[in-house]
Amino acid sequence: MSKELNRQLDEASLEVNRVIDNSFDGLLQPKNLYDASRHLINAGGKRLRPFLVLKTCELVGGRRKEALPVAAAIEFIHNFTLIHDDIMDRDDKRRGVPTVHVLWGVPIALVAGDMLFAKAYDFIINSFDLRNVPPKRVLKVLGVMSKATVSVCEGQAFDMMFEERSDVSEMEYIEMIGRKTAALIEASTLSGSIIGGGNALQMRKLGSFGKYAGLAFQIVDDVLGLTANEKVLGKPVGSDLREGKRTIILLHALAKADRDQRKQILSVIGSKEVPEETIKMTMKLIRSLGSVDYAASRADEYVEKAKKQLSSFSSSEARTALLDLCDYIVSRKY
Amino acid sequence: MSKELNRQLDEASLEVNRVIDNSFDGLLQPKNLYDASRHLINAGGKRLRPFLVLKTCELVGGRRKEALPVAAAIEFIHNFTLIHDDIMDRDDKRRGVPTVHVLWGVPIALVAGDMLFAKAYDFIINSFDLRNVPPKRVLKVLGVMSKATVSVCEGQAFDMMFEERSDVSEMEYIEMIGRKTAALIEASTLSGSIIGGGNALQMRKLGSFGKYAGLAFQIVDDVLGLTANEKVLGKPVGSDLREGKRTIILLHALAKADRDQRKQILSVIGSKEVPEETIKMTMKLIRSLGSVDYAASRADEYVEKAKKQLSSFSSSEARTALLDLCDYIVSRKY
Repeated sequence: MSKELNRQLDEASLEVNRVIDNSFDGLLQPKNLYDASRHLINAGGKRLRPFLVLKTCELVGGRRKEALPVAAAIEFIHNFTLIHDDIMDRDDKRRGVPTVHVLWGVPIALVAGDMLFAKAYDFIINSFDLRNVPPKRVLKVLGVMSKATVSVCEGQAFDMMFEERSDVSEMEYIEMIGRKTAALIEASTLSGSIIGGGNALQMRKLGSFGKYAGLAFQIVDDVLGLTANEKVLGKPVGSDLREGKRTIILLHALAKADRDQRKQILSVIGSKEVPEETIKMTMKLIRSLGSVDYAASRADEYVEKAKKQLSSFSSSEARTALLDLCDYIVSRKY
Repeated sequence: MSKELNRQLDEASLEVNRVIDNSFDGLLQPKNLYDASRHLINAGGKRLRPFLVLKTCELVGGRRKEALPVAAAIEFIHNFTLIHDDIMDRDDKRRGVPTVHVLWGVPIALVAGDMLFAKAYDFIINSFDLRNVPPKRVLKVLGVMSKATVSVCEGQAFDMMFEERSDVSEMEYIEMIGRKTAALIEASTLSGSIIGGGNALQMRKLGSFGKYAGLAFQIVDDVLGLTANEKVLGKPVGSDLREGKRTIILLHALAKADRDQRKQILSVIGSKEVPEETIKMTMKLIRSLGSVDYAASRADEYVEKAKKQLSSFSSSEARTALLDLCDYIVSRKY
């Protein structure tokens, strides 16, 4: 990551974290519910989505300050989906800490997620009451957030259904991650440009930028799930394989494998009982089929598409940051 | 229920169901997710909250048509909370049909609830794009809905926590159901008056009306959970007791019981293993302590408070319907 991007990400994180902290101010009860809903937010994360909201707002000439409540709200929504996702996938760890349902139980984790989602709207609406943003613009942002969340839900359902199928096509996979992951990233860049007062063309370009960057982001996530180690990943290696997630890597491997190899791969996926050694062997096989390289090249393609969307914007600090972020997405190690 | 109220409830139900049906129009995918999210809505329900939205809108002189999207959206939110509530309480039946997680599994049920919630906002925002309602008013309604949902989450968390305690006070119980149940009913009456263009005093009165009616509604629900039979209730008799729910009846009984009686009651609550016969005996004991009558009298008091909020409105069909609804709330048998 470039030094300057790193500095800007840190700066935005600090700012957004302050806004989030303030939003949890006061005597909020019951305490365990609020602790549960803040747990993953506190555990870290890159605040990638808030950063995108702020930078796209700046890029169209808007004031960063106006975009802060939306940036925080989208982080709420992101964390709400993570909490529920972990319940569904029965994941025990995320960001290096135990997941919410592990610490508080499924019922509280479920409600904690719901509350974060409601809070996202509540927070935006209350914040803009005090600002000079036109109500129509705020409504538009809320509409974008809502549509994106519907997409995330659809994507999560597809993701689960795909685990039962062995004939998922790459097109179906792209469509699925477009909903599950890219939709909320697209909503971030679109919201930033709306709040910043961008015109229709700018909004379209920045929406597409987020969509393509989001697709690349998820593909890289799938790659890291297979190649990074547990410490940098914050969750067990090979958990995607164990859960039987139809990642682009797995789809490619299944297509390239001969009969015996296919049999070996299919015997491993979707079973939490498989020993570490077998998982590692299968990961090696998948690598040898060129599937990791293939996925990485697809991620590169999407990042190039994302960058292209920015070509009509004149150069600025915000534009440079967004371009650098694209490079970071495909080069990141966790 | 008065014939006229019955007619109006049916009429409103039909209208709201049509709006809901239209909102699910098109090729929505994945199908099982959408089927799951519609399951409880299709299974019936009185559409009490939509009715309150429509009637309070009319009461302040607004056009019923303008309130319809909000009425449908609040029914979405209500059903989203039911789906998640059933997961948390591990309830198998609701409205006489198997619950969503029983039919589709917990993961899909969880996402189906999330999606309904997102859809509530999406639907309102899209609907008002086509209408002549001022954006500020729409934002205000969305704010009311969001705050109410935060309250519902807090209430559900309190409800669960109370199950672990034997020293819950009646005040704590009222505070809890004020969030868990009354908040969304209050949001319904408040939203109706906002969309209808009510003034500040009207909004305050109608908000309080909803709040008091909602408290009465939940207390009567607790009573019916102990006195109605499974067929009219749509779920097993005594499930509140088995789940250890701290209802006002239970709190009263625990306060009135002598040492042995208290011991008997405490041995039953919160255990799903207790035989039917023991549950029935305990219910009889609780009745004999006057706890059911006590709860019913508290419900009556809240309904009177609710009615009082309407005294400053000049008489109209809408006002009569709301007053009749109050009588129905305390006299209903399921």
